[in-house]
Amino acid sequence: MKVETIFFNENEGTGLTTYLLDSSNEMANALVRPAVLIFPGGGYMMCSDREAEPIAMAYAAEGYHAFVLRYSVGKTATWEEAFADANHAMKMIDDNSESWGIDTERLAVVGFSAGGHLACSLATMGEIRPGAAVLGYPCILAEMGNLLNKAVPGLDQQVDEKTPPVFVFTTFDDQLVPVRNTTALLQALEKGGVPFEAHVFYSGVHGLSLAKSHTSSGFSGNVSHNVAKWFELSVAFLKEIFGDFQADRSFHDFPVDNSDGPYGLDHSLGSLWENQHCRQVLLNYLPMLDDEKVRNQASGVSVRTIISYAEELLTKEQTAMLEHELRQVRRS
Amino acid sequence: MKVETIFFNENEGTGLTTYLLDSSNEMANALVRPAVLIFPGGGYMMCSDREAEPIAMAYAAEGYHAFVLRYSVGKTATWEEAFADANHAMKMIDDNSESWGIDTERLAVVGFSAGGHLACSLATMGEIRPGAAVLGYPCILAEMGNLLNKAVPGLDQQVDEKTPPVFVFTTFDDQLVPVRNTTALLQALEKGGVPFEAHVFYSGVHGLSLAKSHTSSGFSGNVSHNVAKWFELSVAFLKEIFGDFQADRSFHDFPVDNSDGPYGLDHSLGSLWENQHCRQVLLNYLPMLDDEKVRNQASGVSVRTIISYAEELLTKEQTAMLEHELRQVRRS
Amino acid sequence: MKVETIFFNENEGTGLTTYLLDSSNEMANALVRPAVLIFPGGGYMMCSDREAEPIAMAYAAEGYHAFVLRYSVGKTATWEEAFADANHAMKMIDDNSESWGIDTERLAVVGFSAGGHLACSLATMGEIRPGAAVLGYPCILAEMGNLLNKAVPGLDQQVDEKTPPVFVFTTFDDQLVPVRNTTALLQALEKGGVPFEAHVFYSGVHGLSLAKSHTSSGFSGNVSHNVAKWFELSVAFLKEIFGDFQADRSFHDFPVDNSDGPYGLDHSLGSLWENQHCRQVLLNYLPMLDDEKVRNQASGVSVRTIISYAEELLTKEQTAMLEHELRQVRRS
Amino acid sequence: MKVETIFFNENEGTGLTTYLLDSSNEMANALVRPAVLIFPGGGYMMCSDREAEPIAMAYAAEGYHAFVLRYSVGKTATWEEAFADANHAMKMIDDNSESWGIDTERLAVVGFSAGGHLACSLATMGEIRPGAAVLGYPCILAEMGNLLNKAVPGLDQQVDEKTPPVFVFTTFDDQLVPVRNTTALLQALEKGGVPFEAHVFYSGVHGLSLAKSHTSSGFSGNVSHNVAKWFELSVAFLKEIFGDFQADRSFHDFPVDNSDGPYGLDHSLGSLWENQHCRQVLLNYLPMLDDEKVRNQASGVSVRTIISYAEELLTKEQTAMLEHELRQVRRS
Repeated sequence: MKVETIFFNENEGTGLTTYLLDSSNEMANALVRPAVLIFPGGGYMMCSDREAEPIAMAYAAEGYHAFVLRYSVGKTATWEEAFADANHAMKMIDDNSESWGIDTERLAVVGFSAGGHLACSLATMGEIRPGAAVLGYPCILAEMGNLLNKAVPGLDQQVDEKTPPVFVFTTFDDQLVPVRNTTALLQALEKGGVPFEAHVFYSGVHGLSLAKSHTSSGFSGNVSHNVAKWFELSVAFLKEIFGDFQADRSFHDFPVDNSDGPYGLDHSLGSLWENQHCRQVLLNYLPMLDDEKVRNQASGVSVRTIISYAEELLTKEQTAMLEHELRQVRRS
Repeated sequence: MKVETIFFNENEGTGLTTYLLDSSNEMANALVRPAVLIFPGGGYMMCSDREAEPIAMAYAAEGYHAFVLRYSVGKTATWEEAFADANHAMKMIDDNSESWGIDTERLAVVGFSAGGHLACSLATMGEIRPGAAVLGYPCILAEMGNLLNKAVPGLDQQVDEKTPPVFVFTTFDDQLVPVRNTTALLQALEKGGVPFEAHVFYSGVHGLSLAKSHTSSGFSGNVSHNVAKWFELSVAFLKEIFGDFQADRSFHDFPVDNSDGPYGLDHSLGSLWENQHCRQVLLNYLPMLDDEKVRNQASGVSVRTIISYAEELLTKEQTAMLEHELRQVRRS
Repeated sequence: MKVETIFFNENEGTGLTTYLLDSSNEMANALVRPAVLIFPGGGYMMCSDREAEPIAMAYAAEGYHAFVLRYSVGKTATWEEAFADANHAMKMIDDNSESWGIDTERLAVVGFSAGGHLACSLATMGEIRPGAAVLGYPCILAEMGNLLNKAVPGLDQQVDEKTPPVFVFTTFDDQLVPVRNTTALLQALEKGGVPFEAHVFYSGVHGLSLAKSHTSSGFSGNVSHNVAKWFELSVAFLKEIFGDFQADRSFHDFPVDNSDGPYGLDHSLGSLWENQHCRQVLLNYLPMLDDEKVRNQASGVSVRTIISYAEELLTKEQTAMLEHELRQVRRS
Repeated sequence: MKVETIFFNENEGTGLTTYLLDSSNEMANALVRPAVLIFPGGGYMMCSDREAEPIAMAYAAEGYHAFVLRYSVGKTATWEEAFADANHAMKMIDDNSESWGIDTERLAVVGFSAGGHLACSLATMGEIRPGAAVLGYPCILAEMGNLLNKAVPGLDQQVDEKTPPVFVFTTFDDQLVPVRNTTALLQALEKGGVPFEAHVFYSGVHGLSLAKSHTSSGFSGNVSHNVAKWFELSVAFLKEIFGDFQADRSFHDFPVDNSDGPYGLDHSLGSLWENQHCRQVLLNYLPMLDDEKVRNQASGVSVRTIISYAEELLTKEQTAMLEHELRQVRRS
């Protein structure tokens, strides 16, 4: 994983932190990955650590590249400045998508509270629109400006035909950001024909983050087994929008010994060994099979499985040649 | 997150990769964390990427620091060399535990297949023993040496009174590492009085890793909704051994306005405002409350919640002084 | 379980089917149970079996008594007739609550599609109001009368201060009952200050019932691993409203042998056996302990556990007397 | 659901209780169902209610017919008598399978503690063998006879080639039935080549039943969020052995309006209405479509969906004829 912070303004602490997963040929279906851009909450006064790296880790554990944006906050910072940071982050990801191994069609924004306002701002007004938005107990309404102590746009007024699918979760009894923020957004999405998924849990305080013990800062009220389900629900949502990591290749775990067709890697070692030509081919590539104990151990296993287990034994080219030579052997 | 590889032998690619989560005062119960040391599998011939970083990410998402050890492998490498690497890694973590923020009492080893053999070697014979071991489809028996093409100790013979609690999962129809490896281990643990948790799933191939799409390398057989449950089961197990992140502090989300006691931060802004002395104290610390719109927005919320929401407003000391001054105000 | 249908009108097939769980002293915390009254859907033209008994079974598996109401449906039946059936069912449950072992404070209505309309009618206008309402892809709006081919009240207009907490789930792309039914209801609940929980899933057809294979009638589109989560979410919701089955008694699984206090049932058999007076008391009540093999088997177990395991051995009174006598024994 | 007790010996309370789910043409893939035969535990001294009906309900909620056997217990009852009851119950189910709607190939036994011993006795020695066995914290070893106060066969000695797949769960720290019962069984199954699934949880008392609040009898120690997972794991296991309820039919939820093929039920009402011949055919079968408001409501929905929603409108034969007639209409 490549973790790096690209500062926008080092004095103010604004910038983009990358959490880029390593690529590997062993994970051939994940050379290019979907990604999430995370906006922590904090009332446009701070960027809360509880909604930053822990969220990045959660999505990284599902195979997503993650980014955390620390945007302009504080008494004098305006929403416009934060929004400019957000647009800048989207541009930066877009520009670097190839070298970072990101499929920009599958880039979602994820934001919490005021960060949910910023994420939703991108979804409704961004220069580059994300492919989906995940919003946790978001500020939506213009009236929230009173609490936030700065003017912010009412995002229920900004939903348009370019707004991507939205996932939103919150709790009914959020005392700080009233649930009417969420119901107003749903109304606007429904009217605008923008597909959404929504989960309003009955109870839970504002600012639950993952609602797990390690993001609770020690408060029991910050842990909720129930609300914690939002995360896996959000992953299922993103997979419906973006598709899952492709996993449709099949391997033959059980040798095809009874087939009439040509010999090959999917035959068991034992059955190939019975044919003296196959035996010779195998020994050329896998001399260790000369040892009877080794053979006995693996006699019921297909040669493909044996090779896949210890990839250092043969290169891809050698494996292809071995298969090719086995196919030439006539059935006796 | 601090990701760094400390090479043991750069030519051979052996070394310890750290995945150290960031500390934050906002996550006061996670300044010192439990950790996992991960041993990828690969038949002592390679260290599989599918069982390295993705496993580290999964535990990091649960708030654990993680380490991946790439140990000595290959045709000429002996088990003794791999075991020396493993002991060295344990020592290194122990030596750096303070600066890395690790509670070494809560350090678990996690290994898969041949890596499970190595993890279990540490659990039964390590110079420094881990606090728990998590083993995925592990090689245990001495007879596996035939498949692995090198002599390995039979770990069912090595269980002793210093062996920590063990979690093991595998599948009954593992074609490569037969389930008797696991049943023999369980027998040995039971006889030795070593507590364990075990999950043998009915079906699934060898080498499932997280059994999710992103670790499948594109093979449908590497995805199993059912076997994938091993991960959350392992986290629950580790929490039973190590304890959870402490989360027993309470906050007052609902103002205590009807109390007869002294005024304080847990009263609602609205009720405090009715008392002119409280009003003056509040304005000294939070001048923004002079704005009626701001007050109206937050009048039903406790002052503690208002402050916690925007931590930049007051320092801890100022907060304590504000509480102190409110407590002095006589009820009218 | 007592299953019985009390017909309202046998010709028309209307009536209330009871699914009353058996009581048992072994389940002392469930002698009185919460209950659900289920309204299957079917466009006020039928009562679908897919949303009847399978739903009753799901809640019964969680310890709830269940009822299914088959209400007046068909081309000529009016909503008023169906509503009268619903009110009648509530009355019948209320009248029989004592003999049926129901806590009427914890009676929820559960309805699907048109049945969701009827359940919500009870929640907003019922003569007896339920304690909570669970609505699956409900019809809410008056405009649904066009599809239903009969006049129905718009329930978003009927929310009042007596409306109990509401749980609602649906899917965004329901083609038959548009999601605006749900968003309009949420808006009305929010405005009315009625607590709710809401889950709008992104994808899924109308009429999913439990969204599991056995309620699918064979259609793959009727199975959704994701939407199926609504059921356990609804149980968690009901537990938040009604409370859970009480489970706060503790037993001493591990004998208290080192205590300085008096002897008692929570001491291990082995430790009591060492005292000759305890030994005599035990033999009076449990003569089988004269057999050394029996004793050896259970020597590490508390006497309370031994007794609880085989309740036929001693009556409650005998158990109390045994405890009393053990307490009289002086520590030697 | 048909609940009935067929007494074997009414004085002794032995007999078979049926929990037979209702059949319905609306659940066409569940006209014949798999079933479970449940053996409550109780040390062969009683049959515990906590492991009887609640278990039946849990499997019924998954679409399984369920049976509870109350077998011969008590100080004078022998294992042979209990085993005879068990064999008798199997025979009775087999004899009645057709009228009860049971697929006897998919009949599993489910037993707990001593009931697990009895279930496993059937699996290894029964006159009619079940298709699978689910064992909860089972007694297996002959040595358990000491605790049970009667001679019982050691079932680890009875595993044979006719033994069906076995699912077993228990806890490591069961103080009453030591975990060696389970490890010995696994060893025997592995040696006998009998497929199994096993879950040994780290902590939990003996006799957890479903490990949920409503089966706890009020004891907190009888509730375990973690161990409670055994139930859904057992259902997944049974589906692997028996297969799932078939759910491979597809319906066209989204109208196929752009197709070049013939008209049919999968076209939207709106598109069919544009063709005057289709319009006439539709009105013949669904006169309510003459009402424009009704049409507008459903114009984007396929006719198949409209019909499926209100099955009273058309019989199957009428539906087939409607489809037939639509197919005759020429595209204009």
